[in-house]
Amino acid sequence: MSSDARFDLLFTPFKLGPVTAPNRFYQVPHCSGMGHERPHVLAAMRGMKAEGGWGIVNTEYCTIHPSSDDTPFPIQTLWDDADIRQHAMMTEAVHKHGSLAGVELFLGGQRMANLNSRLAPMSIESMPVLGGDPLQTKALDKQDIADIRKWHVDAAKRAVTAGFDLVYIYACHHYLLHSFLSGHENARRDAYGGSPLNRVRIVRELLEAVKEAVGHKCAVALRWASNAAHPQEQDDWLEMTQSLSGLPDLWDLTVNDYSLEMGPSRFVKEGALEEQVGAIRKIVTGGVVTVGRYTSPESMLRLVKSGVADFIGAARPSIADPFLPNKIRENRLDDIRECIGCNICYAHNSRGAPIRCTQNATMGEEWRAGWHPEIITRDALKQRVLVIGAGPAGLEAARVLGARGYDVAVAEKSRAAGGRVNWESKLPGLTEWARVRDWRLTQINKMPNIELFLESEMGVDDVLDFGAQHVICATGSHWRLDGRGRTSHLPVLAPHADILSPEDVMRGVVPKGPVAVYDDDGFYLAPALADKLRQAGCEVHFISSAGVVAPWAEFTGDQAETHAHIVALGIHCHFNKSLSAFVPGKLELGCVYGGAGLTLDVATLVPVTSRQPDDDLYETLVARDHGLKSLTRIGDAEAPGLIAHAVYAGHRAGRLLGVTAKSTAPLRDRGAGTLPLAAE
Amino acid sequence: MSSDARFDLLFTPFKLGPVTAPNRFYQVPHCSGMGHERPHVLAAMRGMKAEGGWGIVNTEYCTIHPSSDDTPFPIQTLWDDADIRQHAMMTEAVHKHGSLAGVELFLGGQRMANLNSRLAPMSIESMPVLGGDPLQTKALDKQDIADIRKWHVDAAKRAVTAGFDLVYIYACHHYLLHSFLSGHENARRDAYGGSPLNRVRIVRELLEAVKEAVGHKCAVALRWASNAAHPQEQDDWLEMTQSLSGLPDLWDLTVNDYSLEMGPSRFVKEGALEEQVGAIRKIVTGGVVTVGRYTSPESMLRLVKSGVADFIGAARPSIADPFLPNKIRENRLDDIRECIGCNICYAHNSRGAPIRCTQNATMGEEWRAGWHPEIITRDALKQRVLVIGAGPAGLEAARVLGARGYDVAVAEKSRAAGGRVNWESKLPGLTEWARVRDWRLTQINKMPNIELFLESEMGVDDVLDFGAQHVICATGSHWRLDGRGRTSHLPVLAPHADILSPEDVMRGVVPKGPVAVYDDDGFYLAPALADKLRQAGCEVHFISSAGVVAPWAEFTGDQAETHAHIVALGIHCHFNKSLSAFVPGKLELGCVYGGAGLTLDVATLVPVTSRQPDDDLYETLVARDHGLKSLTRIGDAEAPGLIAHAVYAGHRAGRLLGVTAKSTAPLRDRGAGTLPLAAE
Repeated sequence: MSSDARFDLLFTPFKLGPVTAPNRFYQVPHCSGMGHERPHVLAAMRGMKAEGGWGIVNTEYCTIHPSSDDTPFPIQTLWDDADIRQHAMMTEAVHKHGSLAGVELFLGGQRMANLNSRLAPMSIESMPVLGGDPLQTKALDKQDIADIRKWHVDAAKRAVTAGFDLVYIYACHHYLLHSFLSGHENARRDAYGGSPLNRVRIVRELLEAVKEAVGHKCAVALRWASNAAHPQEQDDWLEMTQSLSGLPDLWDLTVNDYSLEMGPSRFVKEGALEEQVGAIRKIVTGGVVTVGRYTSPESMLRLVKSGVADFIGAARPSIADPFLPNKIRENRLDDIRECIGCNICYAHNSRGAPIRCTQNATMGEEWRAGWHPEIITRDALKQRVLVIGAGPAGLEAARVLGARGYDVAVAEKSRAAGGRVNWESKLPGLTEWARVRDWRLTQINKMPNIELFLESEMGVDDVLDFGAQHVICATGSHWRLDGRGRTSHLPVLAPHADILSPEDVMRGVVPKGPVAVYDDDGFYLAPALADKLRQAGCEVHFISSAGVVAPWAEFTGDQAETHAHIVALGIHCHFNKSLSAFVPGKLELGCVYGGAGLTLDVATLVPVTSRQPDDDLYETLVARDHGLKSLTRIGDAEAPGLIAHAVYAGHRAGRLLGVTAKSTAPLRDRGAGTLPLAAE
Repeated sequence: MSSDARFDLLFTPFKLGPVTAPNRFYQVPHCSGMGHERPHVLAAMRGMKAEGGWGIVNTEYCTIHPSSDDTPFPIQTLWDDADIRQHAMMTEAVHKHGSLAGVELFLGGQRMANLNSRLAPMSIESMPVLGGDPLQTKALDKQDIADIRKWHVDAAKRAVTAGFDLVYIYACHHYLLHSFLSGHENARRDAYGGSPLNRVRIVRELLEAVKEAVGHKCAVALRWASNAAHPQEQDDWLEMTQSLSGLPDLWDLTVNDYSLEMGPSRFVKEGALEEQVGAIRKIVTGGVVTVGRYTSPESMLRLVKSGVADFIGAARPSIADPFLPNKIRENRLDDIRECIGCNICYAHNSRGAPIRCTQNATMGEEWRAGWHPEIITRDALKQRVLVIGAGPAGLEAARVLGARGYDVAVAEKSRAAGGRVNWESKLPGLTEWARVRDWRLTQINKMPNIELFLESEMGVDDVLDFGAQHVICATGSHWRLDGRGRTSHLPVLAPHADILSPEDVMRGVVPKGPVAVYDDDGFYLAPALADKLRQAGCEVHFISSAGVVAPWAEFTGDQAETHAHIVALGIHCHFNKSLSAFVPGKLELGCVYGGAGLTLDVATLVPVTSRQPDDDLYETLVARDHGLKSLTRIGDAEAPGLIAHAVYAGHRAGRLLGVTAKSTAPLRDRGAGTLPLAAE
């Protein structure tokens, strides 16, 4: 039970069919970008969740047949017995801490392109695959329906052998089973199409078949949307849902709109699914779990007390803080490292790479680098470190070095710690990003061996006089005003008083007359600046070297929303354009495909193209006979990137200071190899 | 030597430093989409090239340090000794056939995002990484320069242990070493920047260091562009090139423009690099290899005789026909399966998946499915197969079944075999695609057990009366006219006489008045149709649901050219649009991001959205008590896709007819596992 009895309810067990969850903290299935190819990395990551108190820990989506092959996304597989061993590594890591392990059996339907298996993807009708690859599905025939049942049963049995306690039937997110459920999409004329009970038949049959096969050993869960894809079918939806009541041991309830379920904090706040899930909860029996990017213990308590759910489902909050449950239990609420909703985790899976986390630099490094999110060994000699710059990189480096026992001083030239986070978190919708700063300051304040000096700009002599053995320059970067970036390696803009930097806009400068934001960066910043300027009353032109707003937000899952938001604000959009020149009142643009140029009457230009590291101090120190034991630059001062990159660089610098080079080389996960099967 | 003495020159050995190539057929390093994660698949594929007569077979790009991590693209790695074993599998497979194996050591510079290793990528200056990810490189410092040398030497030594005969220094394709060479891009002020000899210093030092380390055992090759990135630097380029003359044992010469080197046949024809390479060849000593998508033996002979190159370099032609050299040697020239230049191979690597090939369905299946590109075991009982439809799927199925010994009849309803290939190869630039049809017809004509019946439309009774034991429906598909596709699952267009199908346009219908091509497909077809209509004199609007022309052509490497080509033709472009309605003379479009719609005055609409399989015959047969041993549908009749998908489906159907299900499941390559090192 918890140190604060208020939260005891969250630490009571809950029975799910033949198994019992130790508490109400539930890591829902979430993509990891690790999949079957990195089983050591994956098992260590999932095991860390269990160690941190998550009572149930699930896999990512786990395909049960090569006809659902989501290459190049790293997925889990249960295609044959040889796949059992990689799962057994994960279940063992989870069981070690008394938690239950679950697996999400999966068939992908119209979302698969089968780029590696080369089999034809399957869906109700032959339609283009949704990811954009130039091929269509084949229409499912009767044999395929029988196969789907057999594949689920075979996979469920393998899951039991691998040690899983919970098996999912996955009927949402527009994957194969989901597509049966809508009358608009299900064109079948047999027993699996037509009436709502016909359309839901396949889900019912799979639940029954899997329960019969493994229900004595495993809980059977159903991942299910709370609402119909087409609002006019909501009555059908309720009928289908009710018809399944009593069958699953657990309902993992989400909503039809993935951009709501997985929306970044810019567009979606905590607990956004509660109303829709609550309505469905009332018509089904069995346990219920739902997500909502919950990071507040009070909200979690409210969710369970209100009866909407029995479990706090979490993907992102469990990534940002694997130890969130333990911290609640131990009443260390201010230690919770809250998810900021930036979706950088999801973006990396979308890029076919292991997930990383802005807040939790150890995500994905548990096995590879041996980094524990909570335990940092006190190993330092009594040495002094000077960290210059209190942005995300500097604060994280200081925190880690403090935990290692170093005597740390952080010198920040401005009046507030936080660096770029201070400015960016004031952009429309990005308030939660300030958590990056706040959590680190909270931790630093607890450590007497870290001193933070504000309004302390350091010159070279100041640094050398300071007497530290180690100096870390975390001095950030600034956006270039000359137009250099991906589209033009060389400068294209002459200096001009009416060219504002992104920093100027973030600090609140509101130009007079029409303003053009030129985006060669392709992610959140340029749209957020345009948004801020528009809200300040400016006439705004959004110009991009790409064909859409924020192409990289495709990976964070909010490209369409970001683009629609810019359009809805009444901002003028111009795509596929390059910068040619800016002269008073006139912006000359070229076409990146050699077509006609465009001249816009704008008073002010804000180029968002690339950044220049602020590394003068570092470079000057390097050129001096400085006598330091070590001198490094980290974060944007070395290689400008996301806040996630800066935090990671700070963490890495903190972990590796004084450590021999050998341990700095990232290891490759070479697969499950010839590990014995769990059953052997 | 060859059966036809004319070609003897191509089969003479050539000495390269300490090793001797057995002939002049040279598989240059090319991406495979297999990389370190699929070593069995890779070794079998490379080994097949050697078996087919390629005297030198190279790896794909092989990163030598985690700071060059091209995740999610499947690359080779030589990061540590544990990487040796996967390479040893490949060199052994190549050596078995008397060929030499080469490895392309690689550092990626500004093109890396290090999504998995999480290290900062490195380049001359801190600039955005070129792939679009939101991070910048760090500027190389002095220690990095020293590291680059050490990494190359260490990797070269590991390469020797793995059994390689040839090691590359890779100084082109805008990777790290290339970026030193241009005065526009190299901003260094030390011994590695400034004058041409300073800028080329790092390449010289690496050549010298690697030669010193392994030059007694391995040939050392340099991959090098024949021209400067910036034309005004061509004199510098010649100076740098000359300064290296005598150092590499082999020059692998390409050009600065990758879209020329790797251009699809639509834009680039055979031998496109000869002039530029020839000019450089004259100023260097040592062997020379160059590519040019050579498939004609006469062109190859001319290339070597002219002295432009000593070796015929090939990537794509060796993928389409691994046995091209042997076929020349054996004077079986009409058996050569010529590359069509569709770049579907490259596209799959670009998608993070193993390469496949339109012409060669066995590419990537050598190990996994056990398919040999030339050997098909004669294993069939005396049974009759009826293949309905002589498009790419039907022809390939017939060819494979004929080789297996079946008695095959192909019934084609039209007057010519070829199906969609006949129409598509008449689109602007796609002439070479007809090779898909022609090679198969040539092979089929050699087999007396295959009969091809033209103008033979088959009804259900015709099929059943025919008396075949097996029926394969390869009846193709047609483009839908109702607007259904990715953007709208449901129909959006009412039937209308002024809606033309893509097939109508391909067959030569030229509408009167302005015509709109609406593209929801995103690849080559819609731009090619617009091109054809424009060339026929129409006023053309190109409308797309995407933000650019042909977004999927990003993967084939010609998106920018395709877009620029449409613009240059004077075609009006409208992006991010959805179909709303088509009424006489008016096309109503919506904005996919919820912005303002658009009405265009057009007389004719050509929707390119999705296809309907022509599977009525198949479905009617399925519903009958047909008594056949097997009845299948393949290719577009099952799941419309690329020509590559159709050929593959035909090949697979041919291989698997009558084979038990067990062998149909694709295997996973689980890595090199715990194979012993070559040196052990």
